[in-house]
Amino acid sequence: MDKSSIGQHISQQFNIELEEIRSRVLAMGGLVEEQIANAIKSLIDADVNLAQAVIENDINVNAAEVAIDEECSHVIARRQPAASDLRLIVAVIKTITDLERIGDQAERIARMGMHLAELERPKNNYIEIQAVGERVRQMVHKALDAFARMDIGTAIEVAEDDLSVDQEYDGIMRQALTFMMEDPRSITRMLDVMWTARAIERIGDHAKNISEYVIYLVKGKDVRHTSLEQIQKQLKSD
Amino acid sequence: MDKSSIGQHISQQFNIELEEIRSRVLAMGGLVEEQIANAIKSLIDADVNLAQAVIENDINVNAAEVAIDEECSHVIARRQPAASDLRLIVAVIKTITDLERIGDQAERIARMGMHLAELERPKNNYIEIQAVGERVRQMVHKALDAFARMDIGTAIEVAEDDLSVDQEYDGIMRQALTFMMEDPRSITRMLDVMWTARAIERIGDHAKNISEYVIYLVKGKDVRHTSLEQIQKQLKSD
Repeated sequence: MDKSSIGQHISQQFNIELEEIRSRVLAMGGLVEEQIANAIKSLIDADVNLAQAVIENDINVNAAEVAIDEECSHVIARRQPAASDLRLIVAVIKTITDLERIGDQAERIARMGMHLAELERPKNNYIEIQAVGERVRQMVHKALDAFARMDIGTAIEVAEDDLSVDQEYDGIMRQALTFMMEDPRSITRMLDVMWTARAIERIGDHAKNISEYVIYLVKGKDVRHTSLEQIQKQLKSD
Repeated sequence: MDKSSIGQHISQQFNIELEEIRSRVLAMGGLVEEQIANAIKSLIDADVNLAQAVIENDINVNAAEVAIDEECSHVIARRQPAASDLRLIVAVIKTITDLERIGDQAERIARMGMHLAELERPKNNYIEIQAVGERVRQMVHKALDAFARMDIGTAIEVAEDDLSVDQEYDGIMRQALTFMMEDPRSITRMLDVMWTARAIERIGDHAKNISEYVIYLVKGKDVRHTSLEQIQKQLKSD
């Protein structure tokens, strides 16, 4: 299903409503990306005000989810859409659930940033957190891009990126553990680093979920709970 | 909306389909509860075989989600349900997403159980994990019970229970941190305890999500992102 196939509806009004929903999802995605970027920035710069702003801004992410959810329910009730449009709307409902949870993780990172701001800084100033944080922000961007253009290639890239994120995450966890063992005074701080890494890794998972909804929409194949290898094989066999 | 109002449909076949979906959700819920109970048991009893069984069984939870999801899409496409039935189906789609994620957390707990089985046991044999684990299992049970009977009172109880779980979680985290500080050799083990507590706390959150869908279904009020106090006030004002 590409943009042109969405253009073949009986009702012009319905088209407008679907486009409206799509652009609201993308706007919500933009907001969530900003929350991730600011949360990571607040942690790296030890910027407590920015962290506070991220925490307060989460309410807007939540409000966006509720509003889009209601819009979707209204459109289904009013338009009684056909199967393919319905799939799109169900994918939207799932996508915004993941976006909202990404928002929660960004808030969590900002809270960790506030803790860490008050503690001694490591020499590398958490550069590994910055790197993996930027990577997952890009994953969210790509996943939404795949959603906007119904682009399977981009969706698969997101699944591939998720594997790298998992590796980086494992590296950060091992390193933090080593620091803790060597210097028990670092335990509290390293725990915050671990929770942050965990939150970032979760964001990657949610981005992957979103890209899987895109694959389902385009191919009609449910690839959730399927390994990347299997997905690639399945798609090639078409 | 109670069970009797579901009985007023034009199409008897549609009723049967809705009932079928409801009972599949409850069956999936039963499976997930079992996974939680077994995951906690495997950790407490250091039973590696049981932990392995939980990990392998997660595939059945995933399969249930995909199957119910498809059934929901088919029913919407075929029956073009009216607004209230549609709300029910959307709530089902959200509920099974949470159930699937509870399953993931149970699998995570089982993995921690496998790690911990190989390490020295504390005197209290992780009794605090057992207690909070049993509490969240009951929360999931109550949330599904609220869903089955469309019972707001039970749904609110789940939200209240979530507050106690959060407190117990904070207690476990503080205690684990103290152990780490006192004895750095306990760090690896205490980290597993912390991850387990985190997974259990997440299960509580998902149970709360499910109970909020029930409140939305019955009252038509979206109480996500609303504090318990506000929910209670809102419901009293009806």
